[in-house]
Amino acid sequence: MARHVKKRSHKAGLPPGTPVHIGERKSETTRVKLMHFDDDQVTERDINAPDEVRALRQGPGVNWFTITGLHEIEKLTAIGSAFDLHPLVLEDVFNTDQRPKFEDYGEYVFIVLKRLVNDSTAPEVMTEQISLILGRNTVISFLESESGIFDGIQERLRANRGRMRKLGADFLVYALMDNVVDNYFAIFEALGERIETLQDSLIARPAPESLRTLHALKREMLFLRKSVWPLREVVSALQRGDSPLIQNETRMYLRDVYDHTIHVIDTIETYRDMLSSLLDIYLSSLSNRLNEVMKVLTIIATVFMPLTFIVGIYGMNFHHMPELDWRWGYPVVLLSMLGIAGGMLLFFRRKKWI
Amino acid sequence: MARHVKKRSHKAGLPPGTPVHIGERKSETTRVKLMHFDDDQVTERDINAPDEVRALRQGPGVNWFTITGLHEIEKLTAIGSAFDLHPLVLEDVFNTDQRPKFEDYGEYVFIVLKRLVNDSTAPEVMTEQISLILGRNTVISFLESESGIFDGIQERLRANRGRMRKLGADFLVYALMDNVVDNYFAIFEALGERIETLQDSLIARPAPESLRTLHALKREMLFLRKSVWPLREVVSALQRGDSPLIQNETRMYLRDVYDHTIHVIDTIETYRDMLSSLLDIYLSSLSNRLNEVMKVLTIIATVFMPLTFIVGIYGMNFHHMPELDWRWGYPVVLLSMLGIAGGMLLFFRRKKWI
Amino acid sequence: MARHVKKRSHKAGLPPGTPVHIGERKSETTRVKLMHFDDDQVTERDINAPDEVRALRQGPGVNWFTITGLHEIEKLTAIGSAFDLHPLVLEDVFNTDQRPKFEDYGEYVFIVLKRLVNDSTAPEVMTEQISLILGRNTVISFLESESGIFDGIQERLRANRGRMRKLGADFLVYALMDNVVDNYFAIFEALGERIETLQDSLIARPAPESLRTLHALKREMLFLRKSVWPLREVVSALQRGDSPLIQNETRMYLRDVYDHTIHVIDTIETYRDMLSSLLDIYLSSLSNRLNEVMKVLTIIATVFMPLTFIVGIYGMNFHHMPELDWRWGYPVVLLSMLGIAGGMLLFFRRKKWI
Amino acid sequence: MARHVKKRSHKAGLPPGTPVHIGERKSETTRVKLMHFDDDQVTERDINAPDEVRALRQGPGVNWFTITGLHEIEKLTAIGSAFDLHPLVLEDVFNTDQRPKFEDYGEYVFIVLKRLVNDSTAPEVMTEQISLILGRNTVISFLESESGIFDGIQERLRANRGRMRKLGADFLVYALMDNVVDNYFAIFEALGERIETLQDSLIARPAPESLRTLHALKREMLFLRKSVWPLREVVSALQRGDSPLIQNETRMYLRDVYDHTIHVIDTIETYRDMLSSLLDIYLSSLSNRLNEVMKVLTIIATVFMPLTFIVGIYGMNFHHMPELDWRWGYPVVLLSMLGIAGGMLLFFRRKKWI
Amino acid sequence: MARHVKKRSHKAGLPPGTPVHIGERKSETTRVKLMHFDDDQVTERDINAPDEVRALRQGPGVNWFTITGLHEIEKLTAIGSAFDLHPLVLEDVFNTDQRPKFEDYGEYVFIVLKRLVNDSTAPEVMTEQISLILGRNTVISFLESESGIFDGIQERLRANRGRMRKLGADFLVYALMDNVVDNYFAIFEALGERIETLQDSLIARPAPESLRTLHALKREMLFLRKSVWPLREVVSALQRGDSPLIQNETRMYLRDVYDHTIHVIDTIETYRDMLSSLLDIYLSSLSNRLNEVMKVLTIIATVFMPLTFIVGIYGMNFHHMPELDWRWGYPVVLLSMLGIAGGMLLFFRRKKWI
Repeated sequence: MARHVKKRSHKAGLPPGTPVHIGERKSETTRVKLMHFDDDQVTERDINAPDEVRALRQGPGVNWFTITGLHEIEKLTAIGSAFDLHPLVLEDVFNTDQRPKFEDYGEYVFIVLKRLVNDSTAPEVMTEQISLILGRNTVISFLESESGIFDGIQERLRANRGRMRKLGADFLVYALMDNVVDNYFAIFEALGERIETLQDSLIARPAPESLRTLHALKREMLFLRKSVWPLREVVSALQRGDSPLIQNETRMYLRDVYDHTIHVIDTIETYRDMLSSLLDIYLSSLSNRLNEVMKVLTIIATVFMPLTFIVGIYGMNFHHMPELDWRWGYPVVLLSMLGIAGGMLLFFRRKKWI
Repeated sequence: MARHVKKRSHKAGLPPGTPVHIGERKSETTRVKLMHFDDDQVTERDINAPDEVRALRQGPGVNWFTITGLHEIEKLTAIGSAFDLHPLVLEDVFNTDQRPKFEDYGEYVFIVLKRLVNDSTAPEVMTEQISLILGRNTVISFLESESGIFDGIQERLRANRGRMRKLGADFLVYALMDNVVDNYFAIFEALGERIETLQDSLIARPAPESLRTLHALKREMLFLRKSVWPLREVVSALQRGDSPLIQNETRMYLRDVYDHTIHVIDTIETYRDMLSSLLDIYLSSLSNRLNEVMKVLTIIATVFMPLTFIVGIYGMNFHHMPELDWRWGYPVVLLSMLGIAGGMLLFFRRKKWI
Repeated sequence: MARHVKKRSHKAGLPPGTPVHIGERKSETTRVKLMHFDDDQVTERDINAPDEVRALRQGPGVNWFTITGLHEIEKLTAIGSAFDLHPLVLEDVFNTDQRPKFEDYGEYVFIVLKRLVNDSTAPEVMTEQISLILGRNTVISFLESESGIFDGIQERLRANRGRMRKLGADFLVYALMDNVVDNYFAIFEALGERIETLQDSLIARPAPESLRTLHALKREMLFLRKSVWPLREVVSALQRGDSPLIQNETRMYLRDVYDHTIHVIDTIETYRDMLSSLLDIYLSSLSNRLNEVMKVLTIIATVFMPLTFIVGIYGMNFHHMPELDWRWGYPVVLLSMLGIAGGMLLFFRRKKWI
Repeated sequence: MARHVKKRSHKAGLPPGTPVHIGERKSETTRVKLMHFDDDQVTERDINAPDEVRALRQGPGVNWFTITGLHEIEKLTAIGSAFDLHPLVLEDVFNTDQRPKFEDYGEYVFIVLKRLVNDSTAPEVMTEQISLILGRNTVISFLESESGIFDGIQERLRANRGRMRKLGADFLVYALMDNVVDNYFAIFEALGERIETLQDSLIARPAPESLRTLHALKREMLFLRKSVWPLREVVSALQRGDSPLIQNETRMYLRDVYDHTIHVIDTIETYRDMLSSLLDIYLSSLSNRLNEVMKVLTIIATVFMPLTFIVGIYGMNFHHMPELDWRWGYPVVLLSMLGIAGGMLLFFRRKKWI
Repeated sequence: MARHVKKRSHKAGLPPGTPVHIGERKSETTRVKLMHFDDDQVTERDINAPDEVRALRQGPGVNWFTITGLHEIEKLTAIGSAFDLHPLVLEDVFNTDQRPKFEDYGEYVFIVLKRLVNDSTAPEVMTEQISLILGRNTVISFLESESGIFDGIQERLRANRGRMRKLGADFLVYALMDNVVDNYFAIFEALGERIETLQDSLIARPAPESLRTLHALKREMLFLRKSVWPLREVVSALQRGDSPLIQNETRMYLRDVYDHTIHVIDTIETYRDMLSSLLDIYLSSLSNRLNEVMKVLTIIATVFMPLTFIVGIYGMNFHHMPELDWRWGYPVVLLSMLGIAGGMLLFFRRKKWI
């Protein structure tokens, strides 16, 4: 549940725009790295004093600031004001319980994404918030932890692979978003396999543990759905929006990210349908089993109750029971009981119970 | 139910615009307080005669009137006409069974919100209606009771924390709305924990009381949903509307309130999904238990019915039953019964019943 | 069912615009009453000849014609043509199986509403159709029966209470609609109480009669929903439409009626959700009870079957059963059976069955 | 199923516009009848050679061609080209597995409707496709069989009842559509009565045959829904479209057809809701019955198992059973068994099982 | 599952636009065929060097390139750049896990379709991706395998049947799409027959295998729905779009494809409804059967338990049991037991259990 309801309530009553970090503390110190690139070269450096930022923002080429760790509020607030960010933007960056969103502040656009993390230690998928700011020639990315998610892109920039060095800040933002969305596919392939396994085990044998797994997967889907659905609007707003910060060439690429997002949403809805269908299978299997159990009971009872009654008759102690003295009384009774049992079984066979 | 259906019917037949108080009487007397502030200073006073209001409305700075207690209809009607409020506005203020709404009357905008109250004495969440009126330099807030919900904002105004004293009446209205919405999070965290607890107890043991709790929570959700969903439209209309009373700067902040509202609605929908899922778990667990119970019964009956039949046979009083005279008759029967019982149990084991 | 499917089929094949009365005959004769009012005075009279109408339509002030009883087709057709009404309007007035609707015919607007009637003699809510026509200075209301629903408004006009005499024909139409919608609240309060009672009795004891009540309430909701949902569009079209017959001041009041309609629709949806939830409770309670019953059966069978088997053993007539001759055989068997029964009960206690 | 999936597949691979008849052969020969009318007169004749058509299209008055039987492809194709119909129109006319649709081809508009037929020989409602073409002064109606559905309209034209002869081709098309939709009401009244009957029998006694009827009605609804839903768009497109072929006066009448269509759709949705509700009733009744059955079983078993055990005790053959020798042993045992049975029954009464 | 989740994850981290083939390898080599046609003639040839393409693109007439087999990435990339295709287009062509889509790149439009394949070897419907590019006078179709799906169209072009040689590249694209959609009908007829068969077997006898078939069909529907639903938007966008590459005449034909798509979607939704309805039937039948089984058990137990008790009484060994010595004791007991059994059976008959 902790995943579903982050403690936002301690913010109640504070003035709006107050930067408060909400979420798990995933990285102890806040690091700011700058990657400056243009057509010709790439330079990288660490930034320690927020004021350095102001000087760096002028000049040609693209500046990509990566800020990792969201706990040192004062330091981050200082950085924020060095970038002239609106207090609400900073508040949203710190509050890691945001839905994915896109906001156009004129000078810059602000994008919140969710990275899905499925590490091997926990059965559940976790999210990590990634905030992106795209300004003129500037990209700022806020990460909760050092996850190395953008290492590939940095590598490509250094190696000058692809056209990223040529295409400017908006294409970099596209590449970052594409990276985040592409990572979803791996998560969903894993979930798909878990659903597949569950289905096989449910059809083979309906067990209460399967029900628990089913319920856990359903909650997982609810949670992921909440993280992914709004993304659709975000990418769509970015692609169709009229911000001059995004060039037409990049919009074409954003359409591609949009397609991927729709694909992920489709997958979530398909999985949800499959899971409800599995619940139906589970319940029907339970009903089926009950029927089987009851048939066994009924057959046994129906065969043995009349027989037990008959042997009871000849166990009575009446003085005048002529059958008891007959020579063939005992075998006749045994045989007639055999006949009764056989008749019962025939009856059940005709009813297709056995 | 009282909560769901307030007695509106006694209004039927009255002329429209007739001010009638609908709802519980939560505060005995009606108090009007004025907080006047501008960049430089804050003054606070109580207002007793409605006519004072008229004089106070001119002049620079922002006048924030807080009216608590909605029962003294005549006094409130007098105040309303001192503010030149439309009769329909007054009617809505008094009728505390409103949905959240936003109406633009040109000279002023009228906003109805619902505060959620979850006091420790009752298990259910109650609502209290808060009506806000934003005019030029004037904010009027109507409260059902002295709940102290806006104390923090008054404190901030007095201490001149944040920029509220600078930003005018529309920002004050934003701050009041933000306050109300922020309070929702605490309510929903508490509900989330109740759902969590319920889920744990349902998985451990399906009991009829859990069903009753589940049903109560479902009704709670229905009720909260009705109070929160319309808020979305309210905030959206306020933010996107073209009222000159709201400045662009404030609209940006309202977008933030809108995001929070969406977040709350998301949470409600997630909780509703979780509750339906819990009902499924409950029903499946019941089915499961029935299966378990029936298996025990069937195993017992299947093992003991044939045995009882066999001992019945040798309890018959036929004169000619050769087995009865055999030396080893008794032990042979005992052993063969043991064999039959063992065979049955093997059969059930193979069927995975035990 | 009669309520759900009125016999429309006998209209099939008639030319369009043919006036045929569809519905129950609720009032034997058709009466036309005129209430003429302006700022200064109110005059009332009965109208017998349709031609009188034509003369009366000119002149200042508002003419409100109330026509009660929809069976005298010829008379009504004559009245209709005296008012220059389109044949389709007359057809709709006579056919009391209409959905609420709004149609703008330029010279006049045509509104169909449904009044809900819950008289004490029948458990079901019935509807009665009210058709309103708003022309320049003219309001015509067609009623199925003399229900006295508009008595209050007539009283107010006579007494010159409120501003109705000043505000013209469109405000009168608003007042009539408001009256009809306000009456819904009483109906829904009664329904809400019936649902509440049902819920209490369902939780206390699931009985087949409750199921029947539940089903009846569900159908009631289906029926009411059909009558109320379209009203939303009707009021919205009226309020937002561009008919010059409706003044801006009145539109503001219509917004209020719209809010009430939304409130009623909300209530219907909430009730529907509550009723489905009650069905879930009912089914779970049944399952629960079955579990209880089966547990009792299983416990009894599990305790007594082995014991009956044991006493059967010592009822066998073998000649060589050493136990039978033991001095303490009988008490030992009794005690061991006591032990077995106790063990079973302990087992069930540990399984939490008892 | 034949009704649900008509064999369209054998069309796959043919060039588009290839006229192939899909559907049941309902009428052996293709007949073309012309009804020419204007204000003054009506003339009727049969047309044998397609070329006659071309000549007849000029001149004043309205030409209404009725083409019955859709199997003689060559003849119909010749007629189609005589009318200058687009190949796709002809293809749609022949393929009787169309959804209702409206297409504006500029020179003419093309309308596909579904007539519902509920003849007494089959329990199921069948559809028949009616295609209408409205050109300048020309109406062409394609019917699958001689059903006499438009006889009433022809009669009215001949008798000059109503204003049809005055109002032109578009009004004729309206009258034809109105006729088709009006026929729906009779079908739905019959269905409503079947649902009513089913409900009564379900509440009285849940039997598997009722389930089968319920399922058949559900499929019926699915099928009808598919035929009627698209009609809404068709009529709306026709009414709101800007085709110059339709006069404003006629649009007003089409609004009336639209209302009827909405009414039919409402009825279908209500019926669907009622049918799901009936399934719930059926399932709950089954559960209820199972509970009843199990209670009987449990009461019998609980009363007789202990008693059988007791008599078993005194049937044991131990030599040392002092009770057996007691004078009042037998009556004491009988009385104590009576006491046990009575106690059990009291217990069940307190549990409200009996 | 393999069908549902194709391995996209190994693309994560690659630069956008990187051509990677995703999907099964269905054809080993990549073949490029050109069909050039104009009004007068058709020429066909194989193309081996991508550069040939460039030269061929000029000149009158329509060039239709068919590229089969999507594994030779280098070759295809060369072809792609010879056609000046955007890297994202090539990426989408290779990634056969696309949703159907339509994208307008100005110079050309890009369409992705899904062909449904239901070969006799597998019970499941598979999809194959078909990508179409429509440029000025050029059509490029990318196929996964040599399926012969477009053979009919090639034949028609060669034979100059229909007007295809006259109508240009956009009509050819229409014909290809129409062909793909027409193939759907055969698939859905087959599915409809499987559902029909399932229904018959479910009503006759609810068996677990039917449940499995039902579940498989439901998944099939989920899968097909995902492939077909987006097609609606694709065709609609193509038909209503403003691309100059598509002539008005062709748009009319595309409206026809749109109708077919809607028809297919309708069919899918109907099938889904039918399948849920079948699950209801299955569950109700199970409940019904359980009731039957339990009735048999209860009748047997209720008849024989009291009788067994009675014979047990007279099997007791009390010394003082006067009945045992009566002359007619035995026959009296037998007769009274017969009476009890008869009474029980009468009771069950009155309860309508037998």
